[in-house]
Amino acid sequence: MQRALSVTRADFPDWYQAVVREADMAETSPVRGAMVIKPWGYGVWELIQAELDRRIKATGHENCYFPLFIPMSFLAKEADHVEGFAKEMAVVTHHRLRTVDGKLEVDPDARLEEPLIVRPTSETIIGDAFSRWVRSYRDLPLLINQWANVVRWEMRTRLFLRTSEFLWQEGHTAHADMTEAREETLKMLEVYREFAETVLAMPVVAGEKPENERFPGAVNTYSIEAMMQDGKALQAGTSHYLGVGFAEAQNIRFQTDKGDWAHAHTTSWGVSTRLIGGVIMTHGDDDGLRLPPAIAPRQIVVVPMLRDKPEDAEVLAYGEALVRDLTGLTALGQPVRALLDKKPIKSSEKRWNWVRKGAPIIVEIGPRDAAGGQVTYMRRDQIRDGDKVRSLNADRGAFLGSVPALLAEIQAALYAEAKQRLEANIVDGIADFDGLADYFGPAADDEAASAFKGWVRVAWSKPTGAELDKVDQRLKALKLTIRNTPSVQPAGSLGPCIFTGAPAVETILVARAY
Amino acid sequence: MQRALSVTRADFPDWYQAVVREADMAETSPVRGAMVIKPWGYGVWELIQAELDRRIKATGHENCYFPLFIPMSFLAKEADHVEGFAKEMAVVTHHRLRTVDGKLEVDPDARLEEPLIVRPTSETIIGDAFSRWVRSYRDLPLLINQWANVVRWEMRTRLFLRTSEFLWQEGHTAHADMTEAREETLKMLEVYREFAETVLAMPVVAGEKPENERFPGAVNTYSIEAMMQDGKALQAGTSHYLGVGFAEAQNIRFQTDKGDWAHAHTTSWGVSTRLIGGVIMTHGDDDGLRLPPAIAPRQIVVVPMLRDKPEDAEVLAYGEALVRDLTGLTALGQPVRALLDKKPIKSSEKRWNWVRKGAPIIVEIGPRDAAGGQVTYMRRDQIRDGDKVRSLNADRGAFLGSVPALLAEIQAALYAEAKQRLEANIVDGIADFDGLADYFGPAADDEAASAFKGWVRVAWSKPTGAELDKVDQRLKALKLTIRNTPSVQPAGSLGPCIFTGAPAVETILVARAY
Repeated sequence: MQRALSVTRADFPDWYQAVVREADMAETSPVRGAMVIKPWGYGVWELIQAELDRRIKATGHENCYFPLFIPMSFLAKEADHVEGFAKEMAVVTHHRLRTVDGKLEVDPDARLEEPLIVRPTSETIIGDAFSRWVRSYRDLPLLINQWANVVRWEMRTRLFLRTSEFLWQEGHTAHADMTEAREETLKMLEVYREFAETVLAMPVVAGEKPENERFPGAVNTYSIEAMMQDGKALQAGTSHYLGVGFAEAQNIRFQTDKGDWAHAHTTSWGVSTRLIGGVIMTHGDDDGLRLPPAIAPRQIVVVPMLRDKPEDAEVLAYGEALVRDLTGLTALGQPVRALLDKKPIKSSEKRWNWVRKGAPIIVEIGPRDAAGGQVTYMRRDQIRDGDKVRSLNADRGAFLGSVPALLAEIQAALYAEAKQRLEANIVDGIADFDGLADYFGPAADDEAASAFKGWVRVAWSKPTGAELDKVDQRLKALKLTIRNTPSVQPAGSLGPCIFTGAPAVETILVARAY
Repeated sequence: MQRALSVTRADFPDWYQAVVREADMAETSPVRGAMVIKPWGYGVWELIQAELDRRIKATGHENCYFPLFIPMSFLAKEADHVEGFAKEMAVVTHHRLRTVDGKLEVDPDARLEEPLIVRPTSETIIGDAFSRWVRSYRDLPLLINQWANVVRWEMRTRLFLRTSEFLWQEGHTAHADMTEAREETLKMLEVYREFAETVLAMPVVAGEKPENERFPGAVNTYSIEAMMQDGKALQAGTSHYLGVGFAEAQNIRFQTDKGDWAHAHTTSWGVSTRLIGGVIMTHGDDDGLRLPPAIAPRQIVVVPMLRDKPEDAEVLAYGEALVRDLTGLTALGQPVRALLDKKPIKSSEKRWNWVRKGAPIIVEIGPRDAAGGQVTYMRRDQIRDGDKVRSLNADRGAFLGSVPALLAEIQAALYAEAKQRLEANIVDGIADFDGLADYFGPAADDEAASAFKGWVRVAWSKPTGAELDKVDQRLKALKLTIRNTPSVQPAGSLGPCIFTGAPAVETILVARAY
């Protein structure tokens, strides 16, 4: 069977790279580890931003912008935080270049007194502002969000999934007490869950990360985890309750309504351009990307079948009128995003370009459609009928009338397909560590390590400290990690922990992960 | 008279700082030269972005994202460009910190082979991508825009007007021929002009910059110039035709429809958070900021006059219903942005906070308004009636009905006031350089240098090279610069150039500037 891509999901890493490239989402840049996000990929990001920003504002947060550079001394303030992040960061040490003998070089006379770090995350610089903004309980809660670029020097990078520079939003809040701060942490986790499932059509499991996977300096870290089509987990968003540790390190203090002084309880939470990688690995197929209509920069693309003949004008006019009518419709709460693709290339090439890019509905119109008032179209989520392309036909008026429901249906179908996969591939019933090792197979065996395994749900006694480290080591040897403790736990008795043998207090998800 | 600010525009620089601070727009950060943009300031920026982005997309451009870091060697490629920018830039030299004896330091083992520059502008890194994307005339025009942060190390900074890090959009396009590229350059200049005048209510003069004020490497640079209330000019946006210089340096080549190879003609254009400084200095008054409704994050703020009495509940309910109804209205093509300010502080304090922040309409409602179905409000653009605050009253229904027209009227009134000031303060008739020097007075005299002078329009023979340098030096001694050659030129004969005595070919604007 002829496919729009030269690789299939059987070779998942290569397939992923091919989709990113062939869907024209992004490319590597000459700057090691940084990516160029191309119009189609950035269009997806703009829709993610718009939808998530609306939710962040609806929950009372306001956007700000804080400096890109963080003085090195700021990072040293919170000991656990620096320990977790200190390793790989971009360091600005000079503020001038000079030309010597026609060659450009760093001017040694322009050395900064204190090195500046390009933000890997902004807790410290935002905490510094909070220490000025918070004086009284009346100033709380302080609910701030920022859309920004951040840099974490990475040795092995992968477009969208792990890049040295990426785009994200980071929420930062300060509260008068623990209860409210914990509520905020869980509220934003729920915003992420709802957003991932509704907008990205990407089902996730929300839950708490184990101690060894916490954000550096956090008291609790929560995540949403999504299952990719190779069975691996992708951490798609995190929300942290930071306790009073950051507030103490940065002097975020306030006078309570009783007149005494207290440190604020802070939170932070973020999602990034990594979500786009998650969308690709959740919905892509062997013909390329499939975009949920809610984040498709163009939901319906009309390809006119032109043949350098007189009837071309009629076809173009018919296409233009169709796009005009489509643009006037509302679907999923937004005006429909439609495009007439007039690029001077062959129409079959255009069709396959849009298939690879994952436009939800692709319309092809020729002279017969124009003359007969018909529309021939494909649903990208159901592009194949056996080996053949599945082509649909409708009366123009009927098609226009069906579009809002059709886009909603495609959104729902992509979600249902991914949800079914997630639910079918969480394995229960593994009773001990050997069973776990057997199930996943040896990590050193490439074939076993890349086989589809999904996730396992096992009983967990919640060990801490050295005992947890031991578990972590044993899992690492199998290239496994604990993903989270799902918020929704099974009823009934759990039996012993498969790692410690002690009575379990909850279940956790274990998986290979990105 | 009691004013909402402690300084007046008579002391313009202090007044500016006071407005930025008292309107809660932004603050300085511990990172030298970088600012923290606070919610009210960032809200203005979000509206600027939304309105301008719509125009950039409507003219066929697509958004992308390119890396923050530029390899030093990239900057060296275009000789004029590096000469213009090479001086003050943030240089990343290392990619890791380490902890030695509990102290954080730059890890000397993590030195980069090639230093990375934090983008001061992205022509070189985007040109590199263009060289991969452009192969054939069919790939042209390439119309790209980016919203990003950039860094230019500045010694003397001023919030919004000149900061080491700022936010902007930068458009970058490539075209098959000069004519089309020049058309693009002027089209985007016109987009900026229309945007500044319609959305920011800030009248500008569009025109071409003289040779000595061109963007480094550009063939032509155009600008829009706005007049601030101290008579100085603010360059509010620029658009550059770059010729084939950048394309040659970066190998942006394409096969023409005739089969031979040619270099693309490129353009770039940008506006930044500096616009917010322009809005403040155009519309602010001695009570603080006045925001044009099109960019006011809250166009109507309702302040309930609460007195800890039983009728408070009724006042709040009345306010909530009013805000709900206001939010359902459409003004200036957008849903009305209204807020009920429930903060637990005195209502008089709230009123003056919103006056300082420049909310276009401030509504105050007390028990009598609630009981009688009335609305008491102030127009921020006409807040004073002599020494007193000018308070208006209307029936609730009539007020709601008038709001769309009222917001449009405030937008128009702010524009008209600024337009009148601009037109009244461009001085003609200065016949020679001595006349110019007399008019502006000695730059060394602080009082003369800060007095309101507006701009002068003088005859210009368009000297180049050394002759232009001489003019530039003479102007610099008076702290003056040539702003631009207005696109709209006076009819009739111009007489001799006031600098060279040679026959003039056009008129230019000369002014002190930010």
